[in-house]
Amino acid sequence: MGNKYEKIVALRREFHRCAETGWLEFETTIKIIKYLMSFGYEVKYGKEIHGERIGLPDNDIIEKHRDTISTDADFDVSEILDGYTGAVAILDTHRDGPVIALRFDIDANGIEESNDKDHRANMEGFASKNPNAMHACGHDGHIALGLAVAEQLAKEKHHLSGKYMLIFQPAEEGVRGAKSIVESGILRDADYLVSGHIGLGAEENEVVCGTIGFLATSKLDIYFEGKPAHAGANPEIGKNALLAASICALNLHTLTQFGSGMSRLNVGILKAGTARNIVPHKAFMEIETRGENEDINRLLLQKVHHVIEGSAKSFDVKYRVVEAGGAPAYNSYPEDFIDGLAEILKKKGMKVTIGKSLGASEDITYMMNEVEKNGGKSVYLMFGTKLAAPHHNNRFDFDESVLSLAYEAYLEIIRSLL
Amino acid sequence: MGNKYEKIVALRREFHRCAETGWLEFETTIKIIKYLMSFGYEVKYGKEIHGERIGLPDNDIIEKHRDTISTDADFDVSEILDGYTGAVAILDTHRDGPVIALRFDIDANGIEESNDKDHRANMEGFASKNPNAMHACGHDGHIALGLAVAEQLAKEKHHLSGKYMLIFQPAEEGVRGAKSIVESGILRDADYLVSGHIGLGAEENEVVCGTIGFLATSKLDIYFEGKPAHAGANPEIGKNALLAASICALNLHTLTQFGSGMSRLNVGILKAGTARNIVPHKAFMEIETRGENEDINRLLLQKVHHVIEGSAKSFDVKYRVVEAGGAPAYNSYPEDFIDGLAEILKKKGMKVTIGKSLGASEDITYMMNEVEKNGGKSVYLMFGTKLAAPHHNNRFDFDESVLSLAYEAYLEIIRSLL
Amino acid sequence: MGNKYEKIVALRREFHRCAETGWLEFETTIKIIKYLMSFGYEVKYGKEIHGERIGLPDNDIIEKHRDTISTDADFDVSEILDGYTGAVAILDTHRDGPVIALRFDIDANGIEESNDKDHRANMEGFASKNPNAMHACGHDGHIALGLAVAEQLAKEKHHLSGKYMLIFQPAEEGVRGAKSIVESGILRDADYLVSGHIGLGAEENEVVCGTIGFLATSKLDIYFEGKPAHAGANPEIGKNALLAASICALNLHTLTQFGSGMSRLNVGILKAGTARNIVPHKAFMEIETRGENEDINRLLLQKVHHVIEGSAKSFDVKYRVVEAGGAPAYNSYPEDFIDGLAEILKKKGMKVTIGKSLGASEDITYMMNEVEKNGGKSVYLMFGTKLAAPHHNNRFDFDESVLSLAYEAYLEIIRSLL
Amino acid sequence: MGNKYEKIVALRREFHRCAETGWLEFETTIKIIKYLMSFGYEVKYGKEIHGERIGLPDNDIIEKHRDTISTDADFDVSEILDGYTGAVAILDTHRDGPVIALRFDIDANGIEESNDKDHRANMEGFASKNPNAMHACGHDGHIALGLAVAEQLAKEKHHLSGKYMLIFQPAEEGVRGAKSIVESGILRDADYLVSGHIGLGAEENEVVCGTIGFLATSKLDIYFEGKPAHAGANPEIGKNALLAASICALNLHTLTQFGSGMSRLNVGILKAGTARNIVPHKAFMEIETRGENEDINRLLLQKVHHVIEGSAKSFDVKYRVVEAGGAPAYNSYPEDFIDGLAEILKKKGMKVTIGKSLGASEDITYMMNEVEKNGGKSVYLMFGTKLAAPHHNNRFDFDESVLSLAYEAYLEIIRSLL
Repeated sequence: MGNKYEKIVALRREFHRCAETGWLEFETTIKIIKYLMSFGYEVKYGKEIHGERIGLPDNDIIEKHRDTISTDADFDVSEILDGYTGAVAILDTHRDGPVIALRFDIDANGIEESNDKDHRANMEGFASKNPNAMHACGHDGHIALGLAVAEQLAKEKHHLSGKYMLIFQPAEEGVRGAKSIVESGILRDADYLVSGHIGLGAEENEVVCGTIGFLATSKLDIYFEGKPAHAGANPEIGKNALLAASICALNLHTLTQFGSGMSRLNVGILKAGTARNIVPHKAFMEIETRGENEDINRLLLQKVHHVIEGSAKSFDVKYRVVEAGGAPAYNSYPEDFIDGLAEILKKKGMKVTIGKSLGASEDITYMMNEVEKNGGKSVYLMFGTKLAAPHHNNRFDFDESVLSLAYEAYLEIIRSLL
Repeated sequence: MGNKYEKIVALRREFHRCAETGWLEFETTIKIIKYLMSFGYEVKYGKEIHGERIGLPDNDIIEKHRDTISTDADFDVSEILDGYTGAVAILDTHRDGPVIALRFDIDANGIEESNDKDHRANMEGFASKNPNAMHACGHDGHIALGLAVAEQLAKEKHHLSGKYMLIFQPAEEGVRGAKSIVESGILRDADYLVSGHIGLGAEENEVVCGTIGFLATSKLDIYFEGKPAHAGANPEIGKNALLAASICALNLHTLTQFGSGMSRLNVGILKAGTARNIVPHKAFMEIETRGENEDINRLLLQKVHHVIEGSAKSFDVKYRVVEAGGAPAYNSYPEDFIDGLAEILKKKGMKVTIGKSLGASEDITYMMNEVEKNGGKSVYLMFGTKLAAPHHNNRFDFDESVLSLAYEAYLEIIRSLL
Repeated sequence: MGNKYEKIVALRREFHRCAETGWLEFETTIKIIKYLMSFGYEVKYGKEIHGERIGLPDNDIIEKHRDTISTDADFDVSEILDGYTGAVAILDTHRDGPVIALRFDIDANGIEESNDKDHRANMEGFASKNPNAMHACGHDGHIALGLAVAEQLAKEKHHLSGKYMLIFQPAEEGVRGAKSIVESGILRDADYLVSGHIGLGAEENEVVCGTIGFLATSKLDIYFEGKPAHAGANPEIGKNALLAASICALNLHTLTQFGSGMSRLNVGILKAGTARNIVPHKAFMEIETRGENEDINRLLLQKVHHVIEGSAKSFDVKYRVVEAGGAPAYNSYPEDFIDGLAEILKKKGMKVTIGKSLGASEDITYMMNEVEKNGGKSVYLMFGTKLAAPHHNNRFDFDESVLSLAYEAYLEIIRSLL
Repeated sequence: MGNKYEKIVALRREFHRCAETGWLEFETTIKIIKYLMSFGYEVKYGKEIHGERIGLPDNDIIEKHRDTISTDADFDVSEILDGYTGAVAILDTHRDGPVIALRFDIDANGIEESNDKDHRANMEGFASKNPNAMHACGHDGHIALGLAVAEQLAKEKHHLSGKYMLIFQPAEEGVRGAKSIVESGILRDADYLVSGHIGLGAEENEVVCGTIGFLATSKLDIYFEGKPAHAGANPEIGKNALLAASICALNLHTLTQFGSGMSRLNVGILKAGTARNIVPHKAFMEIETRGENEDINRLLLQKVHHVIEGSAKSFDVKYRVVEAGGAPAYNSYPEDFIDGLAEILKKKGMKVTIGKSLGASEDITYMMNEVEKNGGKSVYLMFGTKLAAPHHNNRFDFDESVLSLAYEAYLEIIRSLL
């Protein structure tokens, strides 16, 4: 598939260059839509594919990034530039058949790409042009795969039946975007959902069929607001948000012992205070929780809310908790369906493993649960490859031959579902 | 006054022997009443001299001590043995004149008296017979003074006018007893209140007339109650009272910075947990606050209550706060009255200092505020003497000659008030 | 086996009556030795069966309990009464054969037995005579089993070969005694080690053969010592052990997140301070750690020591850590050996489960690791039965018919090893 | 003095416009030097007037500000532009007489000046041109006074004796600059030191002569550095700097109870962590301590260092403490000297108060202690005036007529010292 492969690689590198982080995938989305339209797709985008978005960047960041985008599209990009990013391509064959959804995530990481000379993106000229944004998790490859599959399906259109829905999802990092897409209702009729990821827990050349072990997770932003006072003259009239946040951080970290399974909590960021000699009246924290299953994460969150409220109460400060992201666990597993798909891939000579654990969070679980709740079936694949550096590292890169493998796997699975 | 002096010393030693801590002054009270009756006084005691008592020992401690008391009194001691300790002696001359109240505190400290051979109470055979109870603050001397003054006033009865009220107050340690006595209403008509203390901030042979600098203080007992759980099997169902108490202790200690004056907070005792492998579901703390004035202590207490509530909330445990003691500040100071008394003492050749600061708490302030609220006047004296060891030390002792000095000062002041 | 069963039940109840906690099994040990001698055993006891004992009670507790023991033994009990409790019975057939060790733990729990009338020990008159000591974990049954097996082996002596060693181990509660016995070297030559427990994770009538999932655990006592000071007058010269312990407790509870497996930490007890108005200069904590494997517990302990040292440093107080107990994980599992034993028990009609997880700690692991290190094999059984209340509850009791089941299982296994 | 007054006001407004914060007073210093040279002074500046500078801004901030400065001076400004700001003007009459030092501080606050239309600096066009830098403490007035006094002394040169040294000190905010100037040795020979401040604790039109109550203070920056780790995958290999900083902040706030006098501690700023899902490995804190006297601040600092070390130890992270500022207490008070000066000012019709307390910190105390250590005498004045808003507020302004008052007070005092 030489020519096809070269096309996918070219696409991957094109999108690697314009890396954009979650909800800021302005150029990325516009590019994707243009490609999809050129393949003849009906494309949905903007508010119609979204419900409530969580974990949005601050307005000034959105505005600042918007100013860097030169848009000459012949469609209305205003909602996209307001952060309603992502796109859904629809191919309706108008012939009886299943509704098949595919999902590709499109956002980059908030990481400055390495400027090491021997980093391939530098050697071969496709490094991110955007400061503090880099495709360090392979989503550039996912976009390329999505477009390549889209092009191929469009070509085969007259031989296909059913309806195809290719979801280019924003803001997977921080597990934010899937919830909004699901809430738009677009997945309601899907009979099948197929998605996957380059790298992760799969070994080189291994295709994991039927990933399990998705952790339930919640991402919260916490704001404390007290009252400033001069720390020398009248400290007693201050209400100390820094101490509330400090005690909150400590107490939160005492909550993770569960007999029923693994749980995690991290206070990743804490910022408090305005000046050395002022009783600090503002504090901000970014935290996340994880649980081996839904119940653990839910109980952990209850405990988290007690600690936040109690910490604020202790220092008589106000607080606000903002949901900044989250993903459910995935407790279903359509065994026969997965086994069937695995057989098909094996027949194509692929090294297939069934039911390997992710041991992390991915907001695809929102979509999988949605589809299965309505009687559909879903599968999540992992495509093993050689990595230049771990995911989220500023020297991350992957062996691009994995793109061929994944492309073929997607097409085989789609064909098998008809 | 040789003979008189010897009597006072003998009384002091008698009461030193039967040292009893606050609300447990059973034998002490019965003895005092017997003496007072023998002098011909009308004596009030039991519930009639009490309002709400705070800081009571546990019932089993009361019962255990009650069992050690052999009582052969010809008056009803049942209320006394229920912890309504103390007594008020009334001498009404039925002649026009002021109502003069004197107050003597009678309780011992919860300290095991030293068994050092060279400790005088051991050498001369008057050490406390009760375990973990010792007169280490001179209240034995106060009792002796009160009885000596009572005897003398009774003798002089026909030459006196007005009404005399000698209050033998229980539970001064922990600032508990005065509140209850005041609430009985007994002080309502007092025109004058005279009290004093051996030692403290007075230098050897110095008589301080008009003590100031009483600190407002509150004593609180805090109970946290959570839920036990096996710490290995299912820690998540436990509610951890030990952590609530620990965080409470820490947070409380951050509250003492006041621009408007000195404040203090101490978590003196913390006990939590039942077994190494059980999530601890019970915790107990004894704390105290102090403030240079009423406002500071009040604001500090507000902050304390926020911390307690917040700490409990954080770990989803219940809490209970019990007032275990307390004393207000004393912001009045009847300057002319004090100066007049000082003159009288100076004329008797005493080394008098006016208006020295205590820098501590004494629940006499409840009584002083009560008397002055009703238009009366009060004075608190300190009688300087040589101490064998500091107050509250297990080798505490004082030069008994201070008893002469104090006795004379009391009588001179009483005579001057007529 | 009617008569035999009645004997075992009678023994169980006899030992239930004289329940004694770890290292205080004075009467228990003496009784055991007498029985063993009466069966004709050579019995080792006292210092010769011990190395370093950990988690000893305070001396005054040992002395106080010693005073309650009336001893009329015709052997030297002085070492036993110093806390070198337990006994090892030796039966050497002087015929070629394996060295077979059996281990029975003998200590009670520090629990006051229920005085509910319907608690069987009360109804049938075998409740613990000792205050705050109760066999609430079935070790009374273990002693009875050990003695019954001993008696039987002695009877069959002339038909047996090899050497038998019946270890009556003290102080299993708190995982303390096994380490000391192992250090005596007595197990060095054992070819087989057989032990077991009534109840625990086994279902009614189930015999678990080859228990796994023993957690590595450490029990630590932590002492902080600072400097007292009057909390009102000069708090700055105090060194606050209560705050050091509080912060230590909190920080310790933040340490339990491990990617590599389950871990646990509990601060079960915290006691600090002497009086409300004194800067608290003494604090004491009882803690325990657990890990799914040795590495986790070891790394957790490293972190624990950092926290203790840092907490002490923060408040400039001294600290001391005393090892109060501990048990290693058990990572071996002689599969063929276990399977073979299971077959034998099944043939006798028992409901056998292989390789069930304990999910807790038992210091038998010290002995199992010792035996297997030297090339031997070990097995730990669980004997399911109906419990009146959970282990360590003050109404704990078990269906005594389990004693028959266990007795038979022990004898079958022993016979199979010859 | 109409014309003179207008000149001082014009100078004040000129320097208000080019407000620059501590160690960044590049334009301010160059302007001052130009003025002083134009008056005929020998001017020292750059490294020769400095020792060790503390509390320097980061290099990139220095560089960034340097880029905004257009310098056309006919003297070497390179050291100034490296942050060796400030200047010392020398006037040597070469006639016998005392060495008189005057000190004027020149730095602005890191505050964005209000853009309210009714803020006078906006109405009359002299608001700060620099972002986040504003003269909100009156140092612009101090510069103007220093230059006005310098001009006058130069004019009167031939009638004067002794030697004059006018110190224009940088970085008073954060109590940083005086230490460096003192270490240069320049004050070693001073017989007198005169300084003062507009506003503060003085009432309208009041001149405070002989300010007391300077608090000892220390400003510390604290850095913790641990080890990052993925918070989901392997939290146990992380070393958590955020928790170390949180516990440090809490523990520090427990340290302020001193029987011997007032103390203060504030953790003003805490920043920690890099991302929500990474174990935070970096933390930064800005703190300050204060003490009513040197001993209290010293003992408090000892305790602070214990807490920092212990907090780092607890979480096995590294730490670094950087002295960012500080000022000693001022325990001397040359009573006769102060009284004499007060008399002189009173004779001129000024409303003079002697010995009023500042209740805050000012690094002039470094200079005062230096001068008095060598047998000299010093006085610090406060010039009361009407303020538009409190010191350090973004609408701070003062009634410029106070400049006349202060100017006259300085000259009267100087003349009296001859």
